[in-house]
Amino acid sequence: MSETVAFIGLGLMGRPMALHLVKAGHTVRVYNRTAAKARSLAEAGATVCATPAEAAQGARVVCTCVGDSPDVREVILGANGVACTAAPGTLIVDHSTIAPSAAQEIERELRARGFRFLDAPLSGGEKGAIEGTLAIMCGGSSEDFEAARPVLSAYGRNLVLVGGPGMGQVAKACNQVLVVNCILGVAEALVLAQKLGADPHKVWSAVKDGAGRSWSLEVLGPKMLADDDSAGFFVKHQQKDVRILLDAARQAGAALPGTALIHQLYRAVQVRGGDECGNQTLYRAIQILSGGEWRPK
Amino acid sequence: MSETVAFIGLGLMGRPMALHLVKAGHTVRVYNRTAAKARSLAEAGATVCATPAEAAQGARVVCTCVGDSPDVREVILGANGVACTAAPGTLIVDHSTIAPSAAQEIERELRARGFRFLDAPLSGGEKGAIEGTLAIMCGGSSEDFEAARPVLSAYGRNLVLVGGPGMGQVAKACNQVLVVNCILGVAEALVLAQKLGADPHKVWSAVKDGAGRSWSLEVLGPKMLADDDSAGFFVKHQQKDVRILLDAARQAGAALPGTALIHQLYRAVQVRGGDECGNQTLYRAIQILSGGEWRPK
Repeated sequence: MSETVAFIGLGLMGRPMALHLVKAGHTVRVYNRTAAKARSLAEAGATVCATPAEAAQGARVVCTCVGDSPDVREVILGANGVACTAAPGTLIVDHSTIAPSAAQEIERELRARGFRFLDAPLSGGEKGAIEGTLAIMCGGSSEDFEAARPVLSAYGRNLVLVGGPGMGQVAKACNQVLVVNCILGVAEALVLAQKLGADPHKVWSAVKDGAGRSWSLEVLGPKMLADDDSAGFFVKHQQKDVRILLDAARQAGAALPGTALIHQLYRAVQVRGGDECGNQTLYRAIQILSGGEWRPK
Repeated sequence: MSETVAFIGLGLMGRPMALHLVKAGHTVRVYNRTAAKARSLAEAGATVCATPAEAAQGARVVCTCVGDSPDVREVILGANGVACTAAPGTLIVDHSTIAPSAAQEIERELRARGFRFLDAPLSGGEKGAIEGTLAIMCGGSSEDFEAARPVLSAYGRNLVLVGGPGMGQVAKACNQVLVVNCILGVAEALVLAQKLGADPHKVWSAVKDGAGRSWSLEVLGPKMLADDDSAGFFVKHQQKDVRILLDAARQAGAALPGTALIHQLYRAVQVRGGDECGNQTLYRAIQILSGGEWRPK
């Protein structure tokens, strides 16, 4: 069923997602802070708008994919934001990774004004966005989740309603805790293998299907072994997500000693200018602690 | 090809492994410090011996599966040890998890006395031993590795020669680094999910196939969710392995901040009497830090 969809935020993730909406036959209205990034969308047939408010005109579903919670608030609730022009009952779906409590606040404000809202953070990276195979973890009502499904299916494969408002963000936070702890294990294991005189490629082969296996070992281990610091997911975004979840954990009284340590270890990468390296460069922090030197290329 | 094999050490792992040797048609001579544990082997047709030296008589291959390096030295090189009676050229295969440097020393001593040696630590736990599907990470010569293969195939499925002497132990150390870091990630993620008000079962379902996936999430996550502290692998053994690898890392100049932290966090389980709980009880340490109380049942 084709309909009018607005898409706000055309970054690494948002651009391919909006293109999938066009390909699926929807009438797509887009907005991006840096207008030049909207060009490929215009060529594909989307209407490029000057403000989020303009993009939201006539759209039954509005998707946002921006940075942190102040960005989300601005494009939805700010001057020239989505809420200025969206019709009552419009379903607003936020794909940004923000604090669960911020998503809950935004949901309450929007509901009070007659809008509907889903928090719907993503997993799968730029690759998943380009291939249209993203995992989408949703928080909200089951009615709104079902209403969003035909739109989200254009770029998402594994859509899960985790619970009420904010619970998509909780699942995303947990996902990031899992990811960074696995990465640290891979980094420490491969540095240890080298320091103890083994061929780390052979060690990788020997352990990759055993009880130590993980997505990180399978996908990021080979990048570490190849000295490949290129990004599937930027260090700066990983750190933003971890900062947000550590704040949420503090407020909720959850102690996350491993994840807090990892947040500090990434700093060794950041202070050397590695913000736009891939999250596997946590490996460099372990190498540095173990006597190595490193600068991003 | 059936032959005479000695098996020293009939613990959780060794007993089912020795039974597989009997079933494969080998003539099996066994020794265990606590003689009562050898009963099932005697019933199956193995010859129960009073000392490692007696077990090694007439065996072309001698397997040991005991505790730490002093235990390995004692059963192989001590009074009444394997080396007292084994014929020149006997292949000694040690399945214990010990320090890579200790394995290298034992290999040198045995080679000087005309014996052959493989370090061959295991992955797969009691389940793998019972099912005969262990992963065996070997260090030594390719000639000795091939000579051991017909025997090890009785209980091992994935046999890998990682490198020269000690390199099986290096791979095992790396495997344990991977395992414990993954477990910590799962523990922190599930505590965070609960503290943030989500249904942790739903969060688990939403993240289990994504970029945060791991063997630990798949197998140990459900145990944590079910408050099941039973052991597939004992905390005390996990801690022994981590202690050994942290020593090896220190000597080699590898910094393992995550693994060192985990070693300390398991202490919260150990001081409460949890040595014989499963390694998933790292979860309890995170719960305790986050305000919970726990005693092993």
